[in-house]
Amino acid sequence: MKPLILITNDDGYLAKGIRTLTDIACEFGDVVVMAPERNASGTSHSITSARPLRVHTLVEKEGLAAHYCDGTPVDCVKLAVEYFCPRPPALVLSGINHGSNSSINVLYSGTMGAVIEATALGLHAIGFSLLNHNPEADFSGAAPSVRQIIATALERGLPADVSLNVNIPRLPADQIKGLRVCHEASAKWLDSFEKRFDPLGRPYWWLTGKFQCENPPDTSDEWALANGYVSIVPIHPDFTHYPSLETLTNTFSHA
Amino acid sequence: MKPLILITNDDGYLAKGIRTLTDIACEFGDVVVMAPERNASGTSHSITSARPLRVHTLVEKEGLAAHYCDGTPVDCVKLAVEYFCPRPPALVLSGINHGSNSSINVLYSGTMGAVIEATALGLHAIGFSLLNHNPEADFSGAAPSVRQIIATALERGLPADVSLNVNIPRLPADQIKGLRVCHEASAKWLDSFEKRFDPLGRPYWWLTGKFQCENPPDTSDEWALANGYVSIVPIHPDFTHYPSLETLTNTFSHA
Repeated sequence: MKPLILITNDDGYLAKGIRTLTDIACEFGDVVVMAPERNASGTSHSITSARPLRVHTLVEKEGLAAHYCDGTPVDCVKLAVEYFCPRPPALVLSGINHGSNSSINVLYSGTMGAVIEATALGLHAIGFSLLNHNPEADFSGAAPSVRQIIATALERGLPADVSLNVNIPRLPADQIKGLRVCHEASAKWLDSFEKRFDPLGRPYWWLTGKFQCENPPDTSDEWALANGYVSIVPIHPDFTHYPSLETLTNTFSHA
Repeated sequence: MKPLILITNDDGYLAKGIRTLTDIACEFGDVVVMAPERNASGTSHSITSARPLRVHTLVEKEGLAAHYCDGTPVDCVKLAVEYFCPRPPALVLSGINHGSNSSINVLYSGTMGAVIEATALGLHAIGFSLLNHNPEADFSGAAPSVRQIIATALERGLPADVSLNVNIPRLPADQIKGLRVCHEASAKWLDSFEKRFDPLGRPYWWLTGKFQCENPPDTSDEWALANGYVSIVPIHPDFTHYPSLETLTNTFSHA
């Protein structure tokens, strides 16, 4: 039996990135798509509990079923795994995101929220992002790397409880230097909000921000991307900082 | 100069938990509150970019300024640090949440999204949650532990880039056995969505779920809470799974 691949994203079911990813995934197995109805960028690991979800089916043919719903990317994964996948997916894919999810951006990303949810459910998952925000972004440079990573993950498997955050530079395929496994670069967003005044002189604040990542080491995703490599960061759904367990046990035993 | 303490939550500025936390924090320093206007439970690390935010000020007196805005908990932290804190906060507190944020629940939690955001901004932060969802929950049993943890964090500091996820059992203060530093228990939510039918016979799906955590080890937060301890989990904003970097470098070098 062909492997089953579940696909979602955070840019919504109409985005060019998810259509590219679906086309590629269909080369490898049977595909189920469950994507948000509308853009859900920046929704992170959000879930919808105050209202129910509705599902609409777009395509239902041999090898491909495509649906959308009015939930978040995390809702999409939960709902699809329970009700719309005829068997457990061998792989959950999210994206291809229009814009970077490298470094600290993984925290805000709905694309990566879906990947982390799939991992928490015991599945293997890969999030793909292209460093190009444009809704009309050209994904042809990214396609060979996406294909190569999916093939490798299906053939060789991934470590238990680990998924991948893949970011792809905005370059033609023949200028991409290769794949590079790395850790997240340490970075922060500065000057997050711009203060403005409405026509009546009352203030409002609009999210903006400058990405600051100084001298990322050559083991990090930011270095890889700046140097023409596809970055592959293994991620897991446990926020525990294990190295400080001992120090803090000491701190609080004296409390 | 007194330490500045910034407070937020995800239950909204009217919640009983944030009022309890504010009262306690005022014993330790000057306090700035910036909380969501409405309940933002389950919003994780969401940010608001499609529309601007408005801020309303409730209290502005010696030692306490309290505001609310129409953003997420993460928005609240970013906005308050940049525009509403007269100096960098010595500590960012979030909660006291009405309901558990132990184990995997940290991923979905807006309370903990705020804590992780503060950590990413280079600040020290603590999220507090009581194992009682009720809007009228009694926080008197939790108060002494909250007070003790804030005092310790201010006196002894926290490790760099590390914050705390504190969960408190639903017990009177004199039945709480003490503080316990632990790691997140491995767990998952099963049967996430319930399928129902509307009066016209059309399906809808509503989020629900059963929390499954089998035999948590005595080093984990679930064990601590089930045995009458306050759990303190050190967390950090880096999802990288460092132990698998080498394996995956090998996997993808053969791709």
